[in-house]
Parts: sequence; C-alpha cells; structure tokens
Amino acid sequence: MPASIPADSVGLVSPQTLHCTTPLALDCGRTLAQYELVYETYGTLNANASNAVLICHALSGDHHAAGYHDLGDKRPGWWDSAIGPGKAIDTNKFFVVCPNNLGGCGGSTGPSSINPETGAVYGPDFPIMTVPDWVRSQTILADHLTITQWAAVVGGSLGAMQAMQWAMSLPNRIRHALIIAAAPKLSAQNIAFNEVARQAIQSDPEFHEGHYTQHNTLPRQGLGLARMLGHITYLSDQAMKEKFGRDLRSGSLNYGYDVEFEVESYLRYQSESFVNRFDANTYLLMTKALDYFDPAKAFNDDLAVAMANIQAHSLVISFTSDWRFSPARSQEIVAALLQSDKEVSYAEIEAHQGHDAFLMPIPRYMEIFETYMQKITVGAA
Amino acid sequence: MPASIPADSVGLVSPQTLHCTTPLALDCGRTLAQYELVYETYGTLNANASNAVLICHALSGDHHAAGYHDLGDKRPGWWDSAIGPGKAIDTNKFFVVCPNNLGGCGGSTGPSSINPETGAVYGPDFPIMTVPDWVRSQTILADHLTITQWAAVVGGSLGAMQAMQWAMSLPNRIRHALIIAAAPKLSAQNIAFNEVARQAIQSDPEFHEGHYTQHNTLPRQGLGLARMLGHITYLSDQAMKEKFGRDLRSGSLNYGYDVEFEVESYLRYQSESFVNRFDANTYLLMTKALDYFDPAKAFNDDLAVAMANIQAHSLVISFTSDWRFSPARSQEIVAALLQSDKEVSYAEIEAHQGHDAFLMPIPRYMEIFETYMQKITVGAA
Repeated sequence: MPASIPADSVGLVSPQTLHCTTPLALDCGRTLAQYELVYETYGTLNANASNAVLICHALSGDHHAAGYHDLGDKRPGWWDSAIGPGKAIDTNKFFVVCPNNLGGCGGSTGPSSINPETGAVYGPDFPIMTVPDWVRSQTILADHLTITQWAAVVGGSLGAMQAMQWAMSLPNRIRHALIIAAAPKLSAQNIAFNEVARQAIQSDPEFHEGHYTQHNTLPRQGLGLARMLGHITYLSDQAMKEKFGRDLRSGSLNYGYDVEFEVESYLRYQSESFVNRFDANTYLLMTKALDYFDPAKAFNDDLAVAMANIQAHSLVISFTSDWRFSPARSQEIVAALLQSDKEVSYAEIEAHQGHDAFLMPIPRYMEIFETYMQKITVGAA
Repeated sequence: MPASIPADSVGLVSPQTLHCTTPLALDCGRTLAQYELVYETYGTLNANASNAVLICHALSGDHHAAGYHDLGDKRPGWWDSAIGPGKAIDTNKFFVVCPNNLGGCGGSTGPSSINPETGAVYGPDFPIMTVPDWVRSQTILADHLTITQWAAVVGGSLGAMQAMQWAMSLPNRIRHALIIAAAPKLSAQNIAFNEVARQAIQSDPEFHEGHYTQHNTLPRQGLGLARMLGHITYLSDQAMKEKFGRDLRSGSLNYGYDVEFEVESYLRYQSESFVNRFDANTYLLMTKALDYFDPAKAFNDDLAVAMANIQAHSLVISFTSDWRFSPARSQEIVAALLQSDKEVSYAEIEAHQGHDAFLMPIPRYMEIFETYMQKITVGAA
C-alpha cells in the first residue's frame, strides 16, 4: 500500500455495480423495471456470512464511505473516521457494505440516469423514493452478496432512519441497529427547512421543472442556496461561533453586499463546491424521503407498536448540540424501544459540532461506537 | 368612533411626514442631503413633553404600530396588542411616536424612493443604514416634535437594538429603555441566515442587481424565499408543531413536489403576501443593519464599557422559546448593564411562540410590560 495512505485506512477501493432486472415496486405505486446499485465493500465476508455490516448514507452521502479511489484524492470516504482496520467498524472483523441509494447521484440509478424506457435522462420523472423503498433495494443487494442477516445496519441522520426501517421491516435479517443522530420523524420545522430548500431549487429559472440536463444547464443558484441553508442546520450556533465568530474578511465593514463576514465566505464556498458534485433532482428527492419517514403513522402514531416486531438490539446515539435532530428526538426512539421491551443502549455525546458531529472522530463517541461493535459476535472467518 | 373599532384601540390614525433638509451624515461615509420620515403618533404630548415614547420597529415593521388606517383594514398596526388606551403603553398617559426607519419601504425615504439628485429610484444606490444612523434620524424627529427627552424608547428585536443605541448614544435624551427579544450583536448563525436570505434575493434573475424597478419587475421568488426562511427562525419548533404538526393538506402523500404538508402551505402563503408589500432592497438593507449592530466592538468587545454612559433605566425581556435571540443573549445585555452599575430589570417570559412572542399579547409579558410603563413618571398634562 502506498506510503501516503494511512495504516488504519481500508486503502484504495473501487465501487462495484449490481445490475438488477427484477422489478422493484415502490411506495409511490410505480415500479422500477431495472436499475443499478453502486456500492463499495471493505473487509472480507466470513464463511457463514455473519460479519456483514450495512452502512446507510444520509442526504448528501454516497457509497464511498471509506478509503480512497485514487492516490491523488484529497479526502477519503465520508465516514473514514469510523470505518477501517482497528476503527469503530473494524474491517479486520467486519465485511462492510455501503451502497449509493436509489435516486442518488453517486452512480446508482437516479434522476440523472438514463431511463431505459425512453433513452433520455429521468430528471424529474424519476420516482420519489422512501426509506422503505431503499430498504427493499438493499435487500436485493444483500441477497446478491449472500448475506441473509446483517450483523449490523449502521447510519447517521437519514442513514439512521434506514437502520430503523431495516429493524422494523426485516426483523430477522438484522442483529443490531446503530441509530445515530436520528429522529423518528421530521418535525414541522425540519419539513419547513426542507421546503425552503426545495423552493430555492425549483424557483431557479435554470431548473426548467427538473429538465435542466436537457437544457444543458444546472440550477446552481437554487441548489447552492439549499446547501447553504442545510449547512446552517447541520452546525450548532456554538460551532459557528468557534469557527467564524463575527470575524470580517477584510478587517472592516464595506457597507455593501459583497462578502464581509467569514461565515458568509464559508457558506459561499460550501455552496459552490456542492453544486459541482450533486444533482438537484436528487436533492429534492432526498428531502422528500426525509419528510415522508414516519413509521409510527400506520400504527396510530404509536412508535412502540411500530417497533413491536423488532428483534435487533439497538444502539442509539445523539449529540448535545444537534438542533436538527436533538437528543430529545433520539430519546423518543429509545422510549419506544423500551416500551416495546427491546434491547437498547443510549448515549448522549457532549459535542459542540451540531448535527454534523455524527461524522466526526469525537473520542467518547468513537469509544462507545467501537465498544458496541466489538461486542457483536460473528462466526469464524 | 365606529362600532367596529375596539374600545381599547387608538382608533383611526393617519401617518404624518417630516421633510428633513438638513443633511444626515451616515456611518457608511455618505450623506443624505434630504429625506422624509413618515411616522404615526398616538395620544397627546403633555405640556412639558415628558410623556413621549418612541417605538422602534424591527426588520419588516413600519410606522403603523397601532390603530387602523381605514375602517376596512383587516388588521390594526403591528403592535396594537401593546399600544392603546389602558394597554401596556397606555395612550391615555403617553404620547407615542413610531417612525418608519430610513431605508424602509413604508413611506420614509428608502431604496424605493426617488433620489432627488438623479430623479430616478434609488434602488441599490440607497446607502446601507446602521442602527446609529437610525437613532440620529430619530433625534431629528424628536427635535421636530419638541421632545428633548423620551420617557421611554421601546422596541423588540432590531427595534430593541435601537432602544439600546439611544441609551448609549444619547444618554440624557432617554429615561427608560425597553429592550425586548434582543441580542447585543448577531451570532455567526444569525448572520448566516441573513446571508442566505440575501443570496436568495440577489440570485433571483428579476433582481437585476437591485434595479428591478427600472425593469418593471420584482425579485418575487428571492424575496419570498428570504421571508420563508425568516419565518422559520421567528417561530419555535414547538409553535410550528402546535400550529401544523405533520398534518397533510389532502390527507395523503402525493409523491410529488406540490404542497403536501400544512406547514408548506403556510410558508408559501406567508411568502406570497410578503412580496406584495415589502421591498427587496429594503430587506437587504435591514439584514445588514442587523449584522452590523455591535456596540461593544469599539470598546474592545466589552459591552459593559460600551454601556458605561447610560443613564436610562432598562427593562430587558426575553422569551423561553426564542432561538433567534435566546434568553442567554438578553442575559448578556443584563450582565453588561449590571456590571456597569445601571438600573435594570429582567424578565424571562415562558412562551412557546419563539421570537415572534414579542408581538403577542401573552398575559405575563403584557403584565410586566404594563407595570413597568405605569411606574414611569411623567409631568402634568
């Protein structure tokens, strides 16, 4: 392995693609006749396939959770801090699978893919996906990999909702659910922020009702606004204060509308880099999947009843400064699990980083995460 | 008075206009050679002009704080709950003055006014105003009304910053400062939300770098987005939950991007009605005045030193669920006032409405407000 890659990295990795030709029925009533799932794996599946861990990604994530695609990569995968030899999700022990969600823009079939029925880009015609839809598609991947039961399904934020859904929908295919920085459903405020983000994208004249690809353009401004707004909700007030305070770029006010405060500069940069890598229709779809997630709804809003069939043991983790999905929201999940007599551990991590804390190598968080994963029993290699 | 107007209303009111021809030097270095201030008054100024109360408005407010302009008005002025005969600011006792701020769009000179030097609309050429600029312009109005000292200067949010500024800049012209739902300066998060709002307006193709009037258009989408975003920050998560929860408009999900949740419908309605009454350049300017407010900056970030010259007594009020300017921010003001040995009373009001609580007739809030105002001594009528 090249010297420039850290020893505790999974190293150079390559995405793989599963071509699925069995139609997938979706919650919206439509069916995907065929689709591709792009995924990465780290570590080695053991003989009885008992050491497989599924990583579910959040709104802007993808299948590249750990390691490097190329020696020139500036950064490793998005959860490299937690996945690798000797890390919380120890790839010496576990076989880790991370797919890009359907509807995503990382390679799996989504709005920016070609619709085989029309030969044109799906764009806005791609169906809106739900968390249960994703779980169904992930079972196809599990079957393909001969994994009948995940040792654990792990995710943060929207990823955690998938872990919860796995435990509820397929109780005998998951032994442990790691539910990090989650909520059992979005609040009206959460939905409101998503709606402003969607309006920003949809009102961009370059959006062309989602057909921007056909117009050889991109709704850059709208997607950029959505990202800036999202970013504010991922960080805590405290984290922003520590990062930027009220520092001025030039040292003095200019009484104009160019960048003045450091935080403005940061937001513009984040926005710019995001629009170069992310698809606007995917962004819309992901926010809808978030808004729609509400497993208790079909059970008279009783989450404990929704969770009655769960067999998995759960670890729920929240972060003190997360105001997007506050510790109180995680505690709703814990309360429902306890009420339905499930095995659950809960940790509230002191952290100033806000919702984004779930991606950070915070020592106490990593310690709890690692200890839990170490206790999971797997068969012989 | 017509039967349709409540007995505790100031009744039908008419704005007045002060034409100012003495140049006003601004913090940005520019000078307004002439300008108009539109204002309303309620009650009667007593013989020694000792019963005058100045109301300072916030971002989207104006001079119409109480009463009705017309019998057909659906709503009274924006702070009618607090101003009127027998109300917290009792117009039987006080002479109340409320101007529209310079740079506003309620009638005072602002971006949508004609620049007398060019004969064209100011648009983006209107100078960015600061809180101290507003206080200077308000002293001209006070002089015109023969008010040498305000019995009280009262404001919420950005209005409270003006009350603070009055107490600091003109200590012998103000006896009481009522500082409601305020912060001594914006946090990085506050600035970030303002920046996203500005970007939304400025990236609207109908903005035309602020010259939308000349193009016979309006940046409706951008201003609407800014308003929706602002609205989320004015309400608490709890208030939104109580108002909308996750209620669906049609009762079921439609797997599309039209309005589905009640909260989406509400935001779109708020946005629509706002863009019909508010000027985008004014919105930009107001957010900058908020960002710039930082009285401690010139005093080595020591607010107590900045407040050293204050003679006014202060009442500081915060609201438990206000996450835009949380109680902790009001407490910073109280701490600085105490540290510099000033008279200050502080009340934290239990309220679920968020930042908007300052506009609501919350019984305990109104009781404290009224009691404080009643104790203010004024001369004989």
